[in-house]
Amino acid sequence: MNRILINNVEMVLEDGSIIHGDIAVEDTLIKYVGKIPPEWQANTVINGDGFLAVPGFVNTHTHAAMTLFRSYADDMLLMDWLENKIWPVEKNLTAEDIYWGSMLAIAEMIKSGTTTFADMYFAMPEVAKAVAESGIRAVLARGMAGVAPNAQQALDESKIFFQEYNGAQNGRISVMLGPHAPYTCPPDYLKSVIDVSQQLGAEIHIHLAETAGEVDNCLKKYGKTPIALMDEIGLLDCGVLAAHCVHLTSDDISIMKNKKVRVAHNPGSNLKLASGIAPVPELLAAGIVVGLGTDGAASNNNLDLLEEIRLAAIIHKNNKADPLVVPARTAVNMGTNFGAAALGLDGSVGKIAPGMKADLTLFNTNKLHWYPRHDKLSLLVYAAGAADVDTVLVDGQILLRDGILTTIDEEKLINEVQTRAIRLTQ
Amino acid sequence: MNRILINNVEMVLEDGSIIHGDIAVEDTLIKYVGKIPPEWQANTVINGDGFLAVPGFVNTHTHAAMTLFRSYADDMLLMDWLENKIWPVEKNLTAEDIYWGSMLAIAEMIKSGTTTFADMYFAMPEVAKAVAESGIRAVLARGMAGVAPNAQQALDESKIFFQEYNGAQNGRISVMLGPHAPYTCPPDYLKSVIDVSQQLGAEIHIHLAETAGEVDNCLKKYGKTPIALMDEIGLLDCGVLAAHCVHLTSDDISIMKNKKVRVAHNPGSNLKLASGIAPVPELLAAGIVVGLGTDGAASNNNLDLLEEIRLAAIIHKNNKADPLVVPARTAVNMGTNFGAAALGLDGSVGKIAPGMKADLTLFNTNKLHWYPRHDKLSLLVYAAGAADVDTVLVDGQILLRDGILTTIDEEKLINEVQTRAIRLTQ
Repeated sequence: MNRILINNVEMVLEDGSIIHGDIAVEDTLIKYVGKIPPEWQANTVINGDGFLAVPGFVNTHTHAAMTLFRSYADDMLLMDWLENKIWPVEKNLTAEDIYWGSMLAIAEMIKSGTTTFADMYFAMPEVAKAVAESGIRAVLARGMAGVAPNAQQALDESKIFFQEYNGAQNGRISVMLGPHAPYTCPPDYLKSVIDVSQQLGAEIHIHLAETAGEVDNCLKKYGKTPIALMDEIGLLDCGVLAAHCVHLTSDDISIMKNKKVRVAHNPGSNLKLASGIAPVPELLAAGIVVGLGTDGAASNNNLDLLEEIRLAAIIHKNNKADPLVVPARTAVNMGTNFGAAALGLDGSVGKIAPGMKADLTLFNTNKLHWYPRHDKLSLLVYAAGAADVDTVLVDGQILLRDGILTTIDEEKLINEVQTRAIRLTQ
Repeated sequence: MNRILINNVEMVLEDGSIIHGDIAVEDTLIKYVGKIPPEWQANTVINGDGFLAVPGFVNTHTHAAMTLFRSYADDMLLMDWLENKIWPVEKNLTAEDIYWGSMLAIAEMIKSGTTTFADMYFAMPEVAKAVAESGIRAVLARGMAGVAPNAQQALDESKIFFQEYNGAQNGRISVMLGPHAPYTCPPDYLKSVIDVSQQLGAEIHIHLAETAGEVDNCLKKYGKTPIALMDEIGLLDCGVLAAHCVHLTSDDISIMKNKKVRVAHNPGSNLKLASGIAPVPELLAAGIVVGLGTDGAASNNNLDLLEEIRLAAIIHKNNKADPLVVPARTAVNMGTNFGAAALGLDGSVGKIAPGMKADLTLFNTNKLHWYPRHDKLSLLVYAAGAADVDTVLVDGQILLRDGILTTIDEEKLINEVQTRAIRLTQ
């Protein structure tokens, strides 16, 4: 049986405190934290001296395969970017492209300390294959646009994908339904998604209230905000992970609270695309679960969740003119246990505690920017870098050691994505 | 004679274009760029394959030695932070502490690609010593507070420091006068600073219009904004590097334009301290020189200028609701040649071109987040990390190679700062 001991390590607990001790991993789970019973014997020992152990980061919103379009088109207006750059090249994507693009995203996420991600894209069995092979944890949704010619096909595929993959890989893969957004999925279509959701017991991952324009159009067309419209048609009763939620009224926030909507906050993408700043302090004050996401690498342009943690910790301070808002501890919670809760994984992921999944990230603190060491949580949030990640475990398996991926051939990956990206955009 | 050839390298030019070729360094200068005459022979060759060469970053505003207080106090209100945390411990600083704190900042800056920094602090001969020994380039200012008991002493020291150090180390060190801010330096004191400035031909580094409160108080006390007040007393005729400039009127911007005030924009510090977002697009549109700064590590909390470049590229897009604002090229210019101009070094620093100082940073692009390679300038600004910096030259001297510092003993440095930081804050 897999028994890994991380000894003599400092670790971040849910309340933001940092303790020193050992972590025992047995099979896929954290067995002991702190003092280990002397009779328990490891078959692998990781010397934790000089490392800070954090719960693996949870990236609650991305489109993994869009790494293929990283740096292809930036500094553009959203519709120009979509219509003239992204949509034309997305049409050329093969299933195999999506496998490799997703693998690049996964490799990058593992190397920057992320152990779980929520994805919305297409050709999802390819994404699931990359998840299975790499060892990362994922919550996958087949994106669906009700206005697209393949709307019904996408729904059918979503259903089959759920039945085949939800709970796969010893539970490492779970599946949601992925209606893209109210502006691409009219109410009738969303009602058929809701039907499928109820049949399967599948939750929903959707973009909501990302831009002011989207909200304005929704008000014009339906006389309601996107949140209120989703509530009216019953979508919010399905269990919803809502990405962005930038433009919300106080009524929206009340509805979200009542319906236990969970939010994927994407500060980097929202800033770069000039979408606005989500009312995160208000959402947190209302008791709404808020996790963090990178969004796709075509609009961010990396999958570094620590960058999102730092952005979340600093942009709301400025936005509220209050430096006490979103302190370091809250930002770390958003990147870990709040993110897990946003994905419905809060019983098993996002905390360093006995009985939780052994999804762990070790930061090498022997770097200049980790000195002096007055407060390691502050150092993590305000000074560290993704490149400080040394070791990553998911489900008790070591996926990164000394900064080297154990399950992914990095050189082959680089060659594949570069060749494919050139073909796609020529 | 020192002759270094960086061959087969991609390099970022001032106009944002990227060319492939060689860079020849002779003594302290860039001798050739592109094709090198066959008769020119190097005595050191750096294989540039896989690297992106950029002009060394210019950090236009920091308080280097404040690394000693990194992570000591965060998520606090400004005055609480200053009065109850920072000022009490700053009183305990010895000259030797400032040497080591500055050396930590310098080491971190070199490792993250910065080749020039502008500093404002005290015990400046110690900072100059660290600059001299490390090989970095710096523009140093002895901070002066007119309201402090040592106001006259600080001015006297500034004068002596200028006379002794301006142009030192073969021009690697230049000196400005550093009156802290209008709210700590009353007009009469500033007038004596202006006198010294005129006597010496010394330019001025000052904090201006950082917070709304500062501007309000200035209006109440003097009936003028800080910029207008500085203009009235003649300070803006001395050649001014103004840090922050967050809260400006359009009249302020006109004055700044007329008086050729140069701005050190500190997006990370301004966000974290909830100070506001500087009107950078307006400043740039007015033709005002805007460089980037990290501010001190107690309020940022690192010295990673690439992070500031990225923040500058994304926060103004959102603030202006326009994703075309501050494109990648402008952000890189702010971190390089605009920064050099802000420090009065634009004839010699901030560009890869023959005759410029050989201040160069090589990014290792063999990292996952540098793939695929549609646009390397976009990758640098939106996807790269400071840890990708592999090689740094200043004044033709190699200060970092394979990520390892050549002039600084990192282990000794870490031990010194950790011991000193504990003593200072106990």
